[in-house]
Amino acid sequence: MKLTIEDIQQAHERIVPYIHCTPILQSAQLNKIFGCELSFKADNFQKVGAFKARGACNAVFSMDQDSLSKGVVTHSSGNHGAALAWAAAMRQTPCTVVMPDNAPQAKKDAVISYGATVVYCEPTMAAREATVTNLITQSGASLVHAYDDNRIIAGQGTAALETLSQIGQPIDMLMAPVGGGGLLGGSALVVKQSKGSESTLVIGAEPEMANDAWQGYKSGVRVAKSAPNTIADGLRATLGVRNFEIITEQVDDILLASEARIVEAMKLIWSRLKIIVEPSAAVPLAVIMDQPEDFHGKRIAIILSGGNLDLDDLPW
Amino acid sequence: MKLTIEDIQQAHERIVPYIHCTPILQSAQLNKIFGCELSFKADNFQKVGAFKARGACNAVFSMDQDSLSKGVVTHSSGNHGAALAWAAAMRQTPCTVVMPDNAPQAKKDAVISYGATVVYCEPTMAAREATVTNLITQSGASLVHAYDDNRIIAGQGTAALETLSQIGQPIDMLMAPVGGGGLLGGSALVVKQSKGSESTLVIGAEPEMANDAWQGYKSGVRVAKSAPNTIADGLRATLGVRNFEIITEQVDDILLASEARIVEAMKLIWSRLKIIVEPSAAVPLAVIMDQPEDFHGKRIAIILSGGNLDLDDLPW
Repeated sequence: MKLTIEDIQQAHERIVPYIHCTPILQSAQLNKIFGCELSFKADNFQKVGAFKARGACNAVFSMDQDSLSKGVVTHSSGNHGAALAWAAAMRQTPCTVVMPDNAPQAKKDAVISYGATVVYCEPTMAAREATVTNLITQSGASLVHAYDDNRIIAGQGTAALETLSQIGQPIDMLMAPVGGGGLLGGSALVVKQSKGSESTLVIGAEPEMANDAWQGYKSGVRVAKSAPNTIADGLRATLGVRNFEIITEQVDDILLASEARIVEAMKLIWSRLKIIVEPSAAVPLAVIMDQPEDFHGKRIAIILSGGNLDLDDLPW
Repeated sequence: MKLTIEDIQQAHERIVPYIHCTPILQSAQLNKIFGCELSFKADNFQKVGAFKARGACNAVFSMDQDSLSKGVVTHSSGNHGAALAWAAAMRQTPCTVVMPDNAPQAKKDAVISYGATVVYCEPTMAAREATVTNLITQSGASLVHAYDDNRIIAGQGTAALETLSQIGQPIDMLMAPVGGGGLLGGSALVVKQSKGSESTLVIGAEPEMANDAWQGYKSGVRVAKSAPNTIADGLRATLGVRNFEIITEQVDDILLASEARIVEAMKLIWSRLKIIVEPSAAVPLAVIMDQPEDFHGKRIAIILSGGNLDLDDLPW
C-alpha cells in the first residue's frame, strides 16, 4: 500500500508526545552570503541527536503488545540504532542492534546507553543482514529496518510536516540529505500532498562519493548494492526499495556535493548558526555553495538531519 | 545614580526590536548527569554571537542625535567591539574600535565587517586607554566602555530579565560568567529586584586564572589592575568600578573554575546541547562540575554568554 500524507499525519500524532518539535533557525549573514532565504529545521536538537528518533518512535509505537513482547531488532552503524534503542526503552521492549565491529565507539556506547543489546558482526551488509535474520529466527523479534519500512518513512516525514507548518508561508524548495531515503522520501510525500506546497520543489542532496541515489534517480534503475565511503557517515546507506519508488515519483532532483564542500558547509553552519551538525546534515548547504546562482532569491527550507559526531576527530 | 530594575526594563523596551529573544535550552541528559535542573539561556545565538549586543545596542539607542553625529569609540579585543560596531551601524553613527594589534584576526575581521574603523595599539590596557582618549579629544566621539557604564550594565541585564520571564517559575540560582562585570552586575539587579526571585541566589563564575573579581569580592577591595591569561578570553577584563559596587552588594558568591574544567564543560555543552559556545560561556557549568553535590536538586539558570571562537584552534 502506498504511503500518503495521512500516514505521516498519523505518525506525527503518535510520536508528538515523545519527540521535540525542533526549531527553525535563520541567519541574516547566511542569507546575505547566498542571496536567498534559508530556513534550517534543526533536527540536530532532536531526541538522540537526529531525525531518526521520529521514525523509530513511530515504528515502535505502531506495534501491538504481542509483537512488542518479542522485541525489536535492527542493524545500524549509526543514529538509527540509538533511535530504536531509545524508542524501545520507552515501551519496555527488548531491543537488539546488530553493529559492524568497526563502528565508532561513541555510536556503540550510545546504543548501549539506551539499554539495547549490541551484537557485533563483520562490517559487510551481507553479514549484517544474515545476523539480523538469525536473531529474528531465534527470538521472533520484529525487524525495524533503518529506512526501507513504511513506518520509518512516515515517521521521518514528520520533520517536513513540522517544517511547513512552522514556516507558515509558501517556500520554493525543500532540501534534505539522502542516504537510505527515509527522510527524503517522507519529506517529498508531505510537500507534494500538502495544500499550498504542491509546487514546492523537493531536492535531495547526496555526497558525490555515495551517489547511488543520484545514479538510480537519473537512470530509473535502483543501485541495489554500494559500499560508499564519504565523510557524511549517515549517508553511506544504499537507497531502499520503497524509498526508491517514492523518490523517483515525487522528488524533483538529486544534486551532488564534493567531500571538501561538505566540510566547508559544515564549518559554515557551526560558525554562523552556532550549532553542531554532523557532516550528513551539511550536504544540502554544500550543494547550494557549489552553484549559488541556481538558488538566488529563493525561499529554501533545509532539514538538518543530525548532530552526532566525534568532537575529537573533526575534519579540519 | 544607582541602577535599578526599571533601568533594565527600559533598556529591554529600547533594544527589543533589534535583538533576539534567545531560547532557553534544557538537556535531560545533563540534568541526569548533574542531578539538578539546568536551564541554559542561549545568548550564543544573540546578534553578533554574544550578549554584548544587548549593552551596546542600549548605549547607542540611548544617545541623542547630536552625540550620535560625533560617533562612538571603544577599546575591545573581543565581542564588545563587534557589538558596538553592529549597533552603531544601525544608527549610521561612525564607530571606532581600538584593538590590541595582537587581537585574533577573526575578531578584527568581525569589527570591520560591521563597518567600524579599527585603530590598532600596543596590547596593554594603558595603550588602549591612551589611544581612546586621543581619539575622543580629536573627534568629540562618545566613549562606550565595554562594562563600566550604566547603559551597558542595564543592557546586559536584559538577558536575565528574559531568562526569568521565559522560565516562568522560581529558580534556586542564576549563574553567569564574570569578566568586567556587566552581565553579572545587570543580572544580579534583575534577580534581586524582581517579584518572586528575591531569594534566588546569584552566582558569578570566574576562571581561577583570572580571579580578580573573586579576590575583590572576598576582600572588599577591588583589584584595579590585572592582566590574566585564561582560555576564557571573554573574561580577561578587570572588574569595573560600577560593576564592583553592584556585585559586592547584590551577588551571593563568586566561584572559580580551573582551565581544564572549563574546556571539559565547553565540550560537554557542545556534545549534549549540540551548540557552539565559547570558553567563557562554559565557566558556570565548569563550576558545577567541580562540586556537583553543592548543586544537587536545584533549579539553576545559566547564561551562555557567547559562541565566538576560532574553529581551527579548539582546545582539544
